[in-house]
Amino acid sequence: MKTASKNDSAKKNAGYKAAEYVEDGMVLGLGTGSTTHYFIEKVGMKMAEEGIKVQGIPTSFQSLLLAKKWNIPITTLEENDVDLSVDGADEVDGDFNLIKGGGAAHTKEKIVDYAAEKFIVIVDESKVVEKLGTFPVPVEVIPDASRIVIQTLEDMGAECEIRMAQRKDGPVITDNGNFVIDAKFAEIASPQHLEIDLNSIPGVVENGIFSQMVDKVIVGTSDGTKEL
Amino acid sequence: MKTASKNDSAKKNAGYKAAEYVEDGMVLGLGTGSTTHYFIEKVGMKMAEEGIKVQGIPTSFQSLLLAKKWNIPITTLEENDVDLSVDGADEVDGDFNLIKGGGAAHTKEKIVDYAAEKFIVIVDESKVVEKLGTFPVPVEVIPDASRIVIQTLEDMGAECEIRMAQRKDGPVITDNGNFVIDAKFAEIASPQHLEIDLNSIPGVVENGIFSQMVDKVIVGTSDGTKEL
Amino acid sequence: MKTASKNDSAKKNAGYKAAEYVEDGMVLGLGTGSTTHYFIEKVGMKMAEEGIKVQGIPTSFQSLLLAKKWNIPITTLEENDVDLSVDGADEVDGDFNLIKGGGAAHTKEKIVDYAAEKFIVIVDESKVVEKLGTFPVPVEVIPDASRIVIQTLEDMGAECEIRMAQRKDGPVITDNGNFVIDAKFAEIASPQHLEIDLNSIPGVVENGIFSQMVDKVIVGTSDGTKEL
Amino acid sequence: MKTASKNDSAKKNAGYKAAEYVEDGMVLGLGTGSTTHYFIEKVGMKMAEEGIKVQGIPTSFQSLLLAKKWNIPITTLEENDVDLSVDGADEVDGDFNLIKGGGAAHTKEKIVDYAAEKFIVIVDESKVVEKLGTFPVPVEVIPDASRIVIQTLEDMGAECEIRMAQRKDGPVITDNGNFVIDAKFAEIASPQHLEIDLNSIPGVVENGIFSQMVDKVIVGTSDGTKEL
Repeated sequence: MKTASKNDSAKKNAGYKAAEYVEDGMVLGLGTGSTTHYFIEKVGMKMAEEGIKVQGIPTSFQSLLLAKKWNIPITTLEENDVDLSVDGADEVDGDFNLIKGGGAAHTKEKIVDYAAEKFIVIVDESKVVEKLGTFPVPVEVIPDASRIVIQTLEDMGAECEIRMAQRKDGPVITDNGNFVIDAKFAEIASPQHLEIDLNSIPGVVENGIFSQMVDKVIVGTSDGTKEL
Repeated sequence: MKTASKNDSAKKNAGYKAAEYVEDGMVLGLGTGSTTHYFIEKVGMKMAEEGIKVQGIPTSFQSLLLAKKWNIPITTLEENDVDLSVDGADEVDGDFNLIKGGGAAHTKEKIVDYAAEKFIVIVDESKVVEKLGTFPVPVEVIPDASRIVIQTLEDMGAECEIRMAQRKDGPVITDNGNFVIDAKFAEIASPQHLEIDLNSIPGVVENGIFSQMVDKVIVGTSDGTKEL
Repeated sequence: MKTASKNDSAKKNAGYKAAEYVEDGMVLGLGTGSTTHYFIEKVGMKMAEEGIKVQGIPTSFQSLLLAKKWNIPITTLEENDVDLSVDGADEVDGDFNLIKGGGAAHTKEKIVDYAAEKFIVIVDESKVVEKLGTFPVPVEVIPDASRIVIQTLEDMGAECEIRMAQRKDGPVITDNGNFVIDAKFAEIASPQHLEIDLNSIPGVVENGIFSQMVDKVIVGTSDGTKEL
Repeated sequence: MKTASKNDSAKKNAGYKAAEYVEDGMVLGLGTGSTTHYFIEKVGMKMAEEGIKVQGIPTSFQSLLLAKKWNIPITTLEENDVDLSVDGADEVDGDFNLIKGGGAAHTKEKIVDYAAEKFIVIVDESKVVEKLGTFPVPVEVIPDASRIVIQTLEDMGAECEIRMAQRKDGPVITDNGNFVIDAKFAEIASPQHLEIDLNSIPGVVENGIFSQMVDKVIVGTSDGTKEL
């Protein structure tokens, strides 16, 4: 319980800090998850308090609902470029490589974060790692291809599981209608190469490695933030 | 714990009993869920023991994997008509009306069960009710329409919730890429009319009321089965 | 050629006339197709000329692009109710019943048009019929169910074809990922009953009959408009 | 007309020749398109004449229907590995690199062809090129990402068009629910690198370059076949 609330204030500190980078007129990429939650909340408060206007591009139905709650006007990638994207991560290393996808929203997140002029990652300290890979890499796959992709991933040295749902029989289905394979590699020597290799497997839609995309990492602590 | 294992043997009794209706050469609809699990298992054993040949049309990825495990050859509605479909239910009343969809597989289940020459429902005693409606009705909707459909359902007297996922941020996504709204009606006067009314709402793909489709209900008990 | 341009000016007259019903602050449902094209165009011109502000909810990617071209801000059903929806039709009868779906966008169109406070249909004279049914009824179906649904439709007296694509092998796929069956009935005695019956077939997502939804029909002619 | 029938007999010769590689007990990948059509036909005839048994994994609804017509039992990648895949191409060069996707089925085709123990390409002479790239590269993208992906492709030097449908308003939708961008590059220096680079763009599901996958190319001529 204590850990939970400590984590929670760390997440809040990171999310609120990121909101300081939001300026009037910006189009924001709105990541998904419990840390980004606080960023969206603070942006909504900032709009009300400072009278600035921004628009948001949600990366999931969840962040769309949050944006609506905080009166952030919604827009789309079809209509606007992204000035700043703020998103969480399941792991981040010292070279700013990420593993994302614990919430199965990483495909839409990668599309929006990659499109952004600037991309800030917000995490609590428990997500900072020396080397990626304790958290399995979420790989989104076209359902028909799942068995074949697992064979290929196992040939690459990964232990694989199709992520099973709760409150639904069978696998988790992503917002794009696909499955998620959680792939645990013994070692990730090069996140950048692994990201490319995974996307080169036929049937893989996107994977949870984000390399060479991050501009800044804000780490929330129980009493403030620091930058990585 | 005790209840769980009691239920479990009741489910097993129902599933095994239904397998007695399986004959050589049949194409079977394979429902989804913990009771159907035992039906598929018993069909597999029966094929091995009696040397009969059947084919199965799964209603979900979960039942496909089970069929594969028990060496039941898979086929599709595109290729074959269905002789016998066997499926579970979340509620069944004395007129053989059902509520299904706790596992979010009810759209594919209804397609296969409706196509079947004969449709047998298997449940444990806890699912038998005098009147449908304690279990909320799962309504599968196209995501863009969810807010509007909820408005309509509330006008019809239902309390509604979009079913939220676990192990995934945001709502449960069905195998067809849609949301599920769980709609709790104060009273379901006529399951048959409600089934039609729900499907007439634009944006609704299918709903969990199954009326006028069931040929037989097998109720598993801790020490056998009875028919409804 | 002459017919084409005559039709074209009739479509333009209908679309432009409908724009007269647009008022400052409205949220508009933006139908799909060649007649609605002119409505969207005129709304864009009206915004520029009169300085009014409206928002649009597109019913397809095509009408989204048009709205963008004419600087109509996009919104969604998730965020806003619809004040006025304007849409075309493939057939309209004297009781304001429609057949839509020649462009395979009828599911999203029905969701938006049904949600609208007011729904205006715009057509050229060639679309006005005494009785619906020369144009086949487009029925959107989940792909796995297509053969079974065709069987049911044939039992109901329809001649059926899965709509095949061009510039793509195999069937047309809708924006929701489904097939379209074009169902030609010998006679449509009651559009209202047929609409309900079609939606009650498991596997049918939505159908192209729109009954009891239309508030006004504007018929474009070569030199003006009239109301039905 | 003459050219059409000449092409047609070339396609037939290629398709029939490939069927010689089919052996009793094989699981076959069934490509999509007008040349593969003849392969499936000949496999069906061969099964009837020689009494061999094979199973087919279709790469589209179109090839599923053809397999059904020729009584080839259908199976899936979930159940079986692929012994031999036979597929057409829009272009093939001397190093056995392909451009595919004129029929928008290239994602499922690549999944099946890549999974195959052996992959044979069948084309008529018009498809053999010195250097890939006269035919634009079909890139399958998640709809929300289309504008952003086009920006990236243009930065890479391509002229891009979203493929528009006929018999449906708006873009062609693939069997996976996505758009196709046809990307014309001035020059394709390395098909292998381009294939990887395209799949590394967030929002790209799969692309039409097939490099390092082909075991044999059978070129149909008006009076026979030759190998590349």
